[in-house]
Amino acid sequence: MKSISLNCDLGESFGAYTLGNDEKIIPLVDAVNIACGFHAGDARTMQETVRLASKHQVKMGAHPGFDDLQGFGRRKIDVKPREVYQLVLYQIGALHGFVRAIGESLHHVKPHGALYNMACQQRKLAEAVAQAVYDFQPSITLFGLSNSELTRAGEKLGLPVAHEVFADRTYQTDGSLTPRTESHAMIKDVVQIQEQVKGMVDRGVVKSTDGKEIPIQADTICVHGDTNEALQVVQSIREVIT
Amino acid sequence: MKSISLNCDLGESFGAYTLGNDEKIIPLVDAVNIACGFHAGDARTMQETVRLASKHQVKMGAHPGFDDLQGFGRRKIDVKPREVYQLVLYQIGALHGFVRAIGESLHHVKPHGALYNMACQQRKLAEAVAQAVYDFQPSITLFGLSNSELTRAGEKLGLPVAHEVFADRTYQTDGSLTPRTESHAMIKDVVQIQEQVKGMVDRGVVKSTDGKEIPIQADTICVHGDTNEALQVVQSIREVIT
Amino acid sequence: MKSISLNCDLGESFGAYTLGNDEKIIPLVDAVNIACGFHAGDARTMQETVRLASKHQVKMGAHPGFDDLQGFGRRKIDVKPREVYQLVLYQIGALHGFVRAIGESLHHVKPHGALYNMACQQRKLAEAVAQAVYDFQPSITLFGLSNSELTRAGEKLGLPVAHEVFADRTYQTDGSLTPRTESHAMIKDVVQIQEQVKGMVDRGVVKSTDGKEIPIQADTICVHGDTNEALQVVQSIREVIT
Amino acid sequence: MKSISLNCDLGESFGAYTLGNDEKIIPLVDAVNIACGFHAGDARTMQETVRLASKHQVKMGAHPGFDDLQGFGRRKIDVKPREVYQLVLYQIGALHGFVRAIGESLHHVKPHGALYNMACQQRKLAEAVAQAVYDFQPSITLFGLSNSELTRAGEKLGLPVAHEVFADRTYQTDGSLTPRTESHAMIKDVVQIQEQVKGMVDRGVVKSTDGKEIPIQADTICVHGDTNEALQVVQSIREVIT
Repeated sequence: MKSISLNCDLGESFGAYTLGNDEKIIPLVDAVNIACGFHAGDARTMQETVRLASKHQVKMGAHPGFDDLQGFGRRKIDVKPREVYQLVLYQIGALHGFVRAIGESLHHVKPHGALYNMACQQRKLAEAVAQAVYDFQPSITLFGLSNSELTRAGEKLGLPVAHEVFADRTYQTDGSLTPRTESHAMIKDVVQIQEQVKGMVDRGVVKSTDGKEIPIQADTICVHGDTNEALQVVQSIREVIT
Repeated sequence: MKSISLNCDLGESFGAYTLGNDEKIIPLVDAVNIACGFHAGDARTMQETVRLASKHQVKMGAHPGFDDLQGFGRRKIDVKPREVYQLVLYQIGALHGFVRAIGESLHHVKPHGALYNMACQQRKLAEAVAQAVYDFQPSITLFGLSNSELTRAGEKLGLPVAHEVFADRTYQTDGSLTPRTESHAMIKDVVQIQEQVKGMVDRGVVKSTDGKEIPIQADTICVHGDTNEALQVVQSIREVIT
Repeated sequence: MKSISLNCDLGESFGAYTLGNDEKIIPLVDAVNIACGFHAGDARTMQETVRLASKHQVKMGAHPGFDDLQGFGRRKIDVKPREVYQLVLYQIGALHGFVRAIGESLHHVKPHGALYNMACQQRKLAEAVAQAVYDFQPSITLFGLSNSELTRAGEKLGLPVAHEVFADRTYQTDGSLTPRTESHAMIKDVVQIQEQVKGMVDRGVVKSTDGKEIPIQADTICVHGDTNEALQVVQSIREVIT
Repeated sequence: MKSISLNCDLGESFGAYTLGNDEKIIPLVDAVNIACGFHAGDARTMQETVRLASKHQVKMGAHPGFDDLQGFGRRKIDVKPREVYQLVLYQIGALHGFVRAIGESLHHVKPHGALYNMACQQRKLAEAVAQAVYDFQPSITLFGLSNSELTRAGEKLGLPVAHEVFADRTYQTDGSLTPRTESHAMIKDVVQIQEQVKGMVDRGVVKSTDGKEIPIQADTICVHGDTNEALQVVQSIREVIT
C-alpha cells in the first residue's frame, strides 16, 4: 500500500470573524493549506495558523485564491494568466514571510476555490499557477486535482506534484468529479467513503457513477473539518489509510 | 565626504489607477521603496516595479503601510504592536516573492506614511517593525527617520540601519522635522535645498529654523518624483552628492 | 415611569462569515442598528436584516462605521470631519436603499465602534455625523451616548435625539463610562444590572463608581446578544422596563 | 429629428488616485453615470461629483458595478441574480444619499463594465438589475444597450428605459456591437462617427460592418472624455445632434 496524505484548508478566519475548527482538524491531517489574505485569512490569522501548524508538525502550504473576500474565492472571475501568476506569487510570498520568520519552510501550494477549479480545467491558467510556484521555489510541491491541467502543468515544469482526490465526492467515467449541482455528487455514507479511499490507495482505482472502475492517481486526499460530522469522516478515513 | 544614497517611493499605482513618474525618477535614485498592496500598489504593479528596479540596478526595498487604500496609508490608525508586526511581515513577504522570482534580493524596508511617522515616535511600534524585519532576514537594512525610535529599535536588534534625512524639509532645534502644518515646513528654493544637503553630507549638520547648527546622521535622503519640478530638485541634489 | 427602548447591533455577518444571534435577540429589542458594509455587513446581509427587522416590527437604524472590516470598525482612524460626513451619508443611503425597497422607513442612525466613541468626544466629528443625518432626512433620530458631544450636535441641529445608556457598564462621577481597560468597567451581576436600569428609567439617575448618584438622561439602552448569557441579561432588563 | 442625449461615466477617482477629465467633459453631456464606490469612486468623489453635476444641471445617474476595484469592474464575475439585485440596490442607495442631501433627484441607473455586458446578455441578471431599480423607485430611467435583455427587462417592469448606442463602435448585422477584440471594432474617423450618429438619430438606422442598414433605437449615446482626442470627438457629436 502506497503512502497517501490528508490535507485540509486552514486559517480562514478574518478580523472579528472566526471560521473552521482549526485546532480540532489539525491533529488528523498531514498537510494544511493556509489562506493568504485574499479570499480569507489575514496577517494575524496567518501568523497564528503557521504557529499552529509548526506545533503540530504538519506540512504547511499556501492556499492562494481570488481577491474576493465577499465571495470567499468561490466565484469565478474572468482573469488573464498574467493576473493569476501575479496573485499566486504575491500570496505565496506573503505566507512564506510568516513561515520563514519561525524557521520553518513552505511545503506546497494549492489554489483555492474558483481559482483551483479554473486552473484544473484551463491550461493557460494552470501554467500560470505552476510558473509562479516554480519561480518562487522549484522544490515546492504543487497540489492539483488528480490528472488535471494543473498537475500536468506542474509536471511539465518539473515541480513535485501531488495528485489530489476526494473521499466524499463521486467520480464520472472520464475521471472528473460529478458537479456539485448533481444530486449524487456527494457521498455521505462513512462506509462508502472508506471503500472509495481504500480503492484509491490500495489499487489506484475509483468506481465511477455508472459502476466502472477507473484508474486514478491518489497522492493526497482533501478533507474538511467544518462540522463535528466532518471531523468524524476524517477520523474514519484516517483509520483506513494508516 | 561620506557616501549618501537617494531613495524614493515607487510602485504606487493600483488597478486602473496610475500614480507617479516611476520611469523618470528611477534613474536618479539609488534605492526604491516599493508599495506592497496595502496602502497602494497591487500584485501587477509590484511585479512591474521589481522588474524596473532590477533593470536600473537600484536597491529594492519593501514599503509596507496600513491597509488603507482609501487614505493612501496616511491616516493614523490605532494599532497594537502585534498588528504592526503582522502587517509588516506580510508585506515584506509579499514583495519578496516578486524579488526572489527574478533572482534579486531585498535590500531594505521602510514603513510608509502614518506607519512611518508612528513607528518613528512610538517605541513599541518601532520595535514591532524592527522585529518583523529581523525575523524575516537580519541582513535587511531598516530605513527610518534619522535618530528616531525606529532607527534605535533597529540598532538595538543589530539590523543594518539607514538614517533618513529630508532635503526639502526644515528641522527644529530638537532635530525633529517642522510639522507640515507650519508655513515654513518645506524648502522650495533649490539652492537652499542644495545647501542643506551639503551640510548634512559634508559636515553631518543641519541648520534649524532658529539658526542653530545641529548634528544629524544622514545615510539616505528621501526624494519624490511626482512632478517635473520635483524631478528637477532631485537632479539638483544628485549634483551635490556625487 | 418614562418609556425607554432597547437597541442592539444587527446584521454584522459578511460573505461566508456569520456573526451574532440576530434571530434570537431581535424579539427582545425595540430598535436595531444595522451594519452598512464598511466595518461589517454586506449587501446580502443588509437585505436579509432589513427583512428580519420588518418582520419583527422593530425600528430600523443605520449603523455606519469606519471602512475597516479588518478591525471591525473598532480602531480609531485619524479622520477629518469632512470624511466622517461623507462616510456616514454614504452608509445611511446604502442601508436606506434596502429599507425603502420593502416600503419601510429609516428610524435612526447610530455610529459604530471607534466612530461612535470619537463622535461622542470630539465636537467637530459629532457635528459631521449630525449634519449627514440631517441632510439625509431631518426627521431621523440620532442615537448617541447620553450627554455627549454627539447628542449635543444633534440637538443643536434640531434632530430628534435618543440619549443612550448602558445597563452593564459602570459610570464615573463625571457621567462618563468607566473605560473598558479598568477592572470594574463591566457589571456582570444580573440583579445589579437590573438595579442600574431601574434607577436610570424610574428616577433618571445612575450610581457612579464612587457611590454618588448622578443624573442621567436615558432614552435607549444598548444591549448585546452575542452569547446565551448576554441574551439572558437582555431578558432580565426587558422584565424591568416593561 | 428626435431628441437624443449624451451620457458619460463620471466620478471614477478613488482616494489618492485621480481618473478622468470630469470638469472638461461635463459641459458637453446631458447625463452622467456616477461610480458608486464598488468598481471606482468613493464617498468623497461621489459627494464632489454630485455637486459638479448639480452645478452643470446634468442628469445624475447611479453607475453600479462589481465590487472589484482591482479590475475596475471590467472582469466578469460569476454572480447570481440575487447578488446582482443586492449590489445594485446598495449602490443606488449610496449614491442617492449624496443626491438627496443637496436636494436633487436621481434620474437614471446604468450598470458599469462587466455588469453592464452581462446584464445586457443574460435575462436573469437583467431582471435583477431592473427589479432593484424598480424597487428603489419606479420612476428612475434604466439605461441599457439598445435592444438588449437589459432594456427588455426594464420595459417589462414598466420602468422608463433609455436605449443606448455607441458613436464610435461598429455594429454587426444582428445589431450587436463588434467585439473589441476585432480590429475594426472602433471607429476613429470623426466624420464617420458623425455619419453614424446622424443615421441613428435622423433615421433610426446604423450601417453594419457588412454594409447593411439595420434599424436601431437610439435614446442616448455613450461618450468618453479620458483624452483630449476623446473630448474633441464628443464635441463633434454634439455638433451633429443639436
